[in-house]
Amino acid sequence: MPIPSQVHFVLRDTAAATLAAAGHQIVVSDLYAQGFNPVASAADFAVRRNPDYLVYALEQRHGTETGGLAPDIRAEIDKVQACDLLIMTFPIFWMSMPAMLKGWIDRVFVSGLFYGGRRVYDRGGMLGKRALVATTLGGRDHMFGAGNLHGELLGPSGMLRHLLQGSLAYVGMGVLEPFVAYHIPYVSAEARTSELERWRTELGQLELRAALPMPRLADFDDSFRPLACAPSPL
Amino acid sequence: MPIPSQVHFVLRDTAAATLAAAGHQIVVSDLYAQGFNPVASAADFAVRRNPDYLVYALEQRHGTETGGLAPDIRAEIDKVQACDLLIMTFPIFWMSMPAMLKGWIDRVFVSGLFYGGRRVYDRGGMLGKRALVATTLGGRDHMFGAGNLHGELLGPSGMLRHLLQGSLAYVGMGVLEPFVAYHIPYVSAEARTSELERWRTELGQLELRAALPMPRLADFDDSFRPLACAPSPL
Repeated sequence: MPIPSQVHFVLRDTAAATLAAAGHQIVVSDLYAQGFNPVASAADFAVRRNPDYLVYALEQRHGTETGGLAPDIRAEIDKVQACDLLIMTFPIFWMSMPAMLKGWIDRVFVSGLFYGGRRVYDRGGMLGKRALVATTLGGRDHMFGAGNLHGELLGPSGMLRHLLQGSLAYVGMGVLEPFVAYHIPYVSAEARTSELERWRTELGQLELRAALPMPRLADFDDSFRPLACAPSPL
Repeated sequence: MPIPSQVHFVLRDTAAATLAAAGHQIVVSDLYAQGFNPVASAADFAVRRNPDYLVYALEQRHGTETGGLAPDIRAEIDKVQACDLLIMTFPIFWMSMPAMLKGWIDRVFVSGLFYGGRRVYDRGGMLGKRALVATTLGGRDHMFGAGNLHGELLGPSGMLRHLLQGSLAYVGMGVLEPFVAYHIPYVSAEARTSELERWRTELGQLELRAALPMPRLADFDDSFRPLACAPSPL
């Protein structure tokens, strides 16, 4: 009997197959198979702006300008720049991404290209692209949401706000309503199949999928202070 | 001239020196110096409960029971179990921990020992211990908080809720009010020194430091559904 693939890998492969069949060009980064290094370090820069004191974001900016970023970072940047829709599939570990994917963001979302100065949110470097998070977790649906055990997972006070707002929306991407499959390691094979069917259906309707509300820079002044009478949605 | 150490390392060394001088025993994990591996994988388990399908949390539980956890994980678990207060010092990357520290949680906070079943929050496996996050970031103070650009960093809708609530409080630790030094890479040497002085002062007053409000299991039934008239603080 073949070893069954974990559901988050099936989410990925289903997305690739479904969208390819619909005529899209697909590029997959399998960070584990690539042996991607998730640990940001001074070794990420061929030439240092300041060899005496490491400010990672400033060296990213310098590396972008001088072509001195590590080749594995540059290769991932090129993939993001080429895409219209970035789909992230992962199992939720500790209300967040596994370290591997977190390190991909740490190293690949470089200052100067993805964001910089006032180029954030709806003026971010990746404006025009969309992002879709598709994830599995052990917890049950009813443990999340206002008033429930863990509070919100996805909403304006959500556990994943550091990813959805603080990372994806921050660099300018339109963040589509995530796909979440709850309690996955513990449900029946039938329930898993039904979640995958739901994913396939939703992949066929991405044009209708809502984007999450995010901060708009027009509501803030040049030093990012809120303008009067224009409260942030958060 | 010696190369100045980054502020988050100084936070760590200051905490170690200040608390040692006050008579506490200090154990430091320097994950970068240790070359800690932040990537969770099947290789973390000497013997598999289910060699055909990896559910990481279930293998953690099995590894804890059988003594089959990887030695680097076991060594870090022993340090956490021996401590009364866990201090995490790190620079905020993308509204969260760097991948290195995220991976430390992914691999070290093992199911069966840190949590499991209904042993979460105020019944978690690390009950009685306290945790203190001390962090630096590039952003400015006024960009955070309700109605501001990024929304809350620390509060009940905060960007760091996945760490403070979803990881530290989840395993039963009392989560002290974090220490945050804003805009650190860009402030004057005087401002940095003054932040370090504030940290030293606060380290001398940890007994007075407030803990953040967190979910209490008494407000939920056996399947974690909220009991009537007992709203979660979140």
